[in-house]
Amino acid sequence: MSFPAALAEAGGLIGARLEQALADGADEPVIHAMRYAVAGGKRLRGFLVLETAALFGIAPAQAISAAAAVEALHAYSLVHDDLPCMDDDDLRRGLPTVHVKWDQATAVLAGDALQTLAFELLCDPALGKADTRLELVRTLALASGAEGMVLGQALDIAAETASAPLTLDQITRLQAGKTGALIRWSAEAGAVIAGADPAPLRAYATALGLAFQIADDILDETGDEAQTGKRLHKDAKAGKATFVSLLGLEGARARARDLVAEAERHLAPYGDKAQTLIDAARFVIARDS
Amino acid sequence: MSFPAALAEAGGLIGARLEQALADGADEPVIHAMRYAVAGGKRLRGFLVLETAALFGIAPAQAISAAAAVEALHAYSLVHDDLPCMDDDDLRRGLPTVHVKWDQATAVLAGDALQTLAFELLCDPALGKADTRLELVRTLALASGAEGMVLGQALDIAAETASAPLTLDQITRLQAGKTGALIRWSAEAGAVIAGADPAPLRAYATALGLAFQIADDILDETGDEAQTGKRLHKDAKAGKATFVSLLGLEGARARARDLVAEAERHLAPYGDKAQTLIDAARFVIARDS
Repeated sequence: MSFPAALAEAGGLIGARLEQALADGADEPVIHAMRYAVAGGKRLRGFLVLETAALFGIAPAQAISAAAAVEALHAYSLVHDDLPCMDDDDLRRGLPTVHVKWDQATAVLAGDALQTLAFELLCDPALGKADTRLELVRTLALASGAEGMVLGQALDIAAETASAPLTLDQITRLQAGKTGALIRWSAEAGAVIAGADPAPLRAYATALGLAFQIADDILDETGDEAQTGKRLHKDAKAGKATFVSLLGLEGARARARDLVAEAERHLAPYGDKAQTLIDAARFVIARDS
Repeated sequence: MSFPAALAEAGGLIGARLEQALADGADEPVIHAMRYAVAGGKRLRGFLVLETAALFGIAPAQAISAAAAVEALHAYSLVHDDLPCMDDDDLRRGLPTVHVKWDQATAVLAGDALQTLAFELLCDPALGKADTRLELVRTLALASGAEGMVLGQALDIAAETASAPLTLDQITRLQAGKTGALIRWSAEAGAVIAGADPAPLRAYATALGLAFQIADDILDETGDEAQTGKRLHKDAKAGKATFVSLLGLEGARARARDLVAEAERHLAPYGDKAQTLIDAARFVIARDS
């Protein structure tokens, strides 16, 4: 199956699982806002869960709740990141952000409950034995908390008021938390569910995550708001250092290509079965949204 | 041991566990804000975890991470609830709230990371077998998410703009989520860790949680800001219905006393071992902070 077809299929399964998880919710704005926040998006993280699980012969039906969990967690981070006191974004995936469509209180609460939902989903017995599920909980907590994603977001916000632009090392550390940690978790999840060694997938995902952020910075510079469905050129306006401002546009593109080649090399142990994951890495730096 | 001495001892152990969990954090405002948010407070929920565990002969060292988890989760809910877009409180436990001492972005992120920390703490192997820990994760997610605490908070916010004050039934449903769900989880946690039937403790905690909220409403009406360390009379100013506005001050006191008597009856199966939990219920309606 081609990568776009695999991504679309994964996205459909993940959307259905999230809808099911939220189907019994109360008829309250916070529940409607949660459904709205998890609808759409590329669902690349959830795809990585399903695709790395498939490397070990794990069917989508077994891994789906972990894929839905990481997408719920990612959605929570976007809802909170878009708040006026954070990145203050009014557009996401081509639609008004949650605090614009509802209000800030609903956005705070919907984000809070989406984080909770992520951990609830990881308790799904379909994912395997209790120690497997608990390992997914433990590693997702580490990836998303104050040593992972939240630390990256805090460094990002601190950068806005820093006296000097960040260095390449500082931006790399920021990215490793802000987007890298969840991408790593997603790629390792398949191995965790299968009880296999996650080391090659961690190395793949570390290179992939950095390439993803560099591609994001390139898109912020060269992309089209209608195409990406979000506000662009925000970093340049804020005077924030990015991979593009530090490496130049061509330098950033070359670095992203090197990282994708590195990501591919780490998949060698899995042979042909890893072709869709290789295609995913190539897509990440070629995408226009 | 008297209840005040037991509460102080539990509070000390819980504070030490939370400090330990946050000791290795980065030197960033978000980590400092997390430490600030979990310092102090009555730690009644964590006490309930340790005290119900003790009913089954479980030592504090085994149950402490569950007690710290529920206090981290409670602290997250307070940090977000105090935000300007929510309850807009500047004072908590006699000190400036997190968004006043730092800023709103730090308060959002610190709250987010405190929720994550709660689930991370429940992965502590000291708590028992993987299926025990996973059951603690699953039940805490249910108690705190969009079917529990967050639903209660959403109903509370909706009440502020409702055309008519809430009825007694509506306020009781709101309370069952907003404060009741975590108090129930805390009291059941001891039984979950011990692998015992949590039903009597659930019944105790349901009555206790409602008594707690009624006592809060009475304090909001009659309390002293210096004593409670938080802003009072907010509900009356906002024209919101409370147990006091619906039952009258004497009616609310009588209802709280009835609930405490009911809570005590549910502890009968545990005999003398439950004396401190009985004292806790009496304290809840007699407290001045």
